[in-house]
Amino acid sequence: FILESLEGVNVADIAALLDELNLEEAIYVLRLLSHETAADIMIELDEVSVNKVIREMEAIELASLIDEMDSDDAADILILMPSKDREDVISHLQEKEKSANILDLLRYDEDSAGGLMAKEYIKANQNWSVIQTIEEIRRQAENVEKIYSIYVVDNKQHLLGRVSLKKIILAASNTKIMDIYEPELISVPTHMEGEEVAEIMRKYDLESVPVVNAKNKLVGRITVDDILDLIREQSEEDIQAMTGISADVEESDSIWRISKARLPWLIIGVVGGLMGAQIITFFEEGLSKYIALASFIPLVAATGGNVGIQSSSLVVQTLASKSVFDDSPWQRFVKGLLIALVNGIVLGLFVFSVVKFIYGFDSIFGFTIGLSMFFVVLMASFMGTVTPLVLDKFGVNPAIASGPFITTANDLLGLAVYFGVAMYLLNL
Amino acid sequence: FILESLEGVNVADIAALLDELNLEEAIYVLRLLSHETAADIMIELDEVSVNKVIREMEAIELASLIDEMDSDDAADILILMPSKDREDVISHLQEKEKSANILDLLRYDEDSAGGLMAKEYIKANQNWSVIQTIEEIRRQAENVEKIYSIYVVDNKQHLLGRVSLKKIILAASNTKIMDIYEPELISVPTHMEGEEVAEIMRKYDLESVPVVNAKNKLVGRITVDDILDLIREQSEEDIQAMTGISADVEESDSIWRISKARLPWLIIGVVGGLMGAQIITFFEEGLSKYIALASFIPLVAATGGNVGIQSSSLVVQTLASKSVFDDSPWQRFVKGLLIALVNGIVLGLFVFSVVKFIYGFDSIFGFTIGLSMFFVVLMASFMGTVTPLVLDKFGVNPAIASGPFITTANDLLGLAVYFGVAMYLLNL
Ligand SMILES: [Mg+2]
Ligand SMILES: [Mg+2]
Ligand SMILES: [Mg+2]
Ligand SMILES: [Mg+2]
Ligand SMILES: [Mg+2]
Ligand SMILES: [Mg+2]
Ligand SMILES: [Mg+2]
Ligand SMILES: [Mg+2]
Ligand SMILES: [Mg+2]
Ligand SMILES: [Mg+2]
Ligand SMILES: [Mg+2]
Ligand SMILES: [Mg+2]
Ligand SMILES: [Mg+2]
Repeated sequence: FILESLEGVNVADIAALLDELNLEEAIYVLRLLSHETAADIMIELDEVSVNKVIREMEAIELASLIDEMDSDDAADILILMPSKDREDVISHLQEKEKSANILDLLRYDEDSAGGLMAKEYIKANQNWSVIQTIEEIRRQAENVEKIYSIYVVDNKQHLLGRVSLKKIILAASNTKIMDIYEPELISVPTHMEGEEVAEIMRKYDLESVPVVNAKNKLVGRITVDDILDLIREQSEEDIQAMTGISADVEESDSIWRISKARLPWLIIGVVGGLMGAQIITFFEEGLSKYIALASFIPLVAATGGNVGIQSSSLVVQTLASKSVFDDSPWQRFVKGLLIALVNGIVLGLFVFSVVKFIYGFDSIFGFTIGLSMFFVVLMASFMGTVTPLVLDKFGVNPAIASGPFITTANDLLGLAVYFGVAMYLLNL
Repeated sequence: FILESLEGVNVADIAALLDELNLEEAIYVLRLLSHETAADIMIELDEVSVNKVIREMEAIELASLIDEMDSDDAADILILMPSKDREDVISHLQEKEKSANILDLLRYDEDSAGGLMAKEYIKANQNWSVIQTIEEIRRQAENVEKIYSIYVVDNKQHLLGRVSLKKIILAASNTKIMDIYEPELISVPTHMEGEEVAEIMRKYDLESVPVVNAKNKLVGRITVDDILDLIREQSEEDIQAMTGISADVEESDSIWRISKARLPWLIIGVVGGLMGAQIITFFEEGLSKYIALASFIPLVAATGGNVGIQSSSLVVQTLASKSVFDDSPWQRFVKGLLIALVNGIVLGLFVFSVVKFIYGFDSIFGFTIGLSMFFVVLMASFMGTVTPLVLDKFGVNPAIASGPFITTANDLLGLAVYFGVAMYLLNL
């Protein structure tokens, strides 16, 4: 019945289905299926569901599923468990080699190359012949689902290069690997950040990349399917950071869950707005003498917000794709300042002209609004450029610099600058 | 000298270098290199540079480079040319088959599966034996750089399934393809949007996907390297749309270029702010009687902006990853409304309490601010949900719904609602 209806359905689709079911039903279905299929499905479940399932299953049962997984997927699941339970599961694994591999992978930071790599790949010694290598492929065929390249190493496991499956098929069987391999090979160190690995694979059109340790010994391989998952996850995180939607919500979640995810940031915005109210109340006396000042409050606030978001997202974009041609932080800072000067002067003059010549205010009032605009642009650019750099230094996702917290801070600073300039120039 | 120093350097790196040089220097370097290397580099140049280079080169010279390219890359370059020049170049191509392939690819929309696919792939008839297939691979080896899967077709070119290179290596040489191929295969139609193809390849862990026409005949193949490029391009476009940075700028561009790209949207924001000033001026009489109203202008404007961005980015995220479980537009609309109600009530009550009990205003004033908040949240949610859906319907990138234009519109509507409510409730 259930089994039959799931036959031939792709595991990714079954996983999407199970994500919608409740815990008991999901575990019921997983137990109906073969260990291999259940393992494939579990890898594709979303993190919330996986977390529930592993808390429900016994160590032995979990170990039998993990036995069927690639080392990288196994490590990704085990890392979600408390370390005691984790050791328990690992002790129940069938293969010694597998548990050693998983333990090795668990050492690396999740978002680094080491945390993305798997231990399943084919390597060939440079002294082997093509026929020996095919023998090795045959031996490993069950473990390594997708081969892509065969990595060539010396006797001490130092990475020398790669040879493609295509070349092996086309070569005579007694050819030595050392005569056909390509020595120019892009590899990444274990500590490289995942985003940088993704950019390297994109730039050089790689579907897999070998990972080496500090001694240039081959320790793993990253495949493009995991990079696609990483990119998607990170772009969702960035957009959520930029829009202040906390937690991991989708439009299909419940109304209450979405509201809850959105409220905290909205409340921060509201608290900011209420603080803004106090700033304005503080200048109320001057304001009542020059009521027209109130009219330009939204202009000043909106411009500060827009400039801040533009500056920060340019910086975030650069941080995401570091290149060799990058300027130093200091050069970037100066450049940001110059751009802000250009924009500030243009916008300031524009606003001055409209306020004086079209709206018919006097020069000193027009100058007040124009000069405030200029200062606000400068200040918002500064905040927008510096904040993501500082956040990145401290290991925080710089995309939140375009989020509501910073926007709110910018609004408040903008108001203070505006009224400060006005009180001074208009002698209020 | 130049040639030697470029030897062994990856083409993607050379391309990045040439992007920084001026046109004459870049063309000089391209002419120094072999046609094959020059072609590989040209594929990796950014669009601005390619455009300049192709306008400078003669049709014959360009044809000799295009002869070395894969059909998809050739089509991507030819599509940049006026159709007369394009025909001229195609007429100079060496291989008849290649020109036919390119002409076929040029028919498809750039961002569809047809526009992403290439004509280089290996297909095998189901009646062939393994040895015949290896023969075909040998024959095609030069054209098809990366094989991934071998697609299996019947005599009428209908797609039946796939067989991996690994399986071919491991099978006996007289085995028939029909006995070893996997019949369950994910394929995409030529008209599918690129973003959807990317999501399918991510979900099912594919490094290549076959493209079929309406009759299920195999017409091309999309590879993951081009999908990585597509994803990067689209996420840059989305962020630029959201932050109102027009054109394709990076932090490394010149100060003038960046300022120019940012100014148009900033000016729209400023014009919006100036219109806001007029709205407030319109209510100036009431405002001067109740000066405290001015204090809460930034609160109302900021909340509208924040709610609008949150709503629209949730919708944009859903649009980017369409799934089978999607609700109908109507259900989503109702759901969005309910979430807005929850958020609106919470924020309205919160603001009412602070204004009355902490800031010590009277009830009617607190009620005015609270009710305005409620209406602004409702209205901004509505705009934030509907705008991206409407944009998407008309084939415009929905991400611009989170951009400055909509934010500005939201600000203005918010001001109008705020003063409308205040004038009514406070009898001004
Ligand atoms: Mg993460
Ligand atoms: Mg991992
Ligand atoms: Mg690429
Ligand atoms: Mg490419
Ligand atoms: Mg993997
Ligand atoms: Mg090529
Ligand atoms: Mg194309
Ligand atoms: Mg995947
Ligand atoms: Mg996967
Ligand atoms: Mg391609
Ligand atoms: Mg672009
Ligand atoms: Mg704003
Ligand atoms: Mg799009």
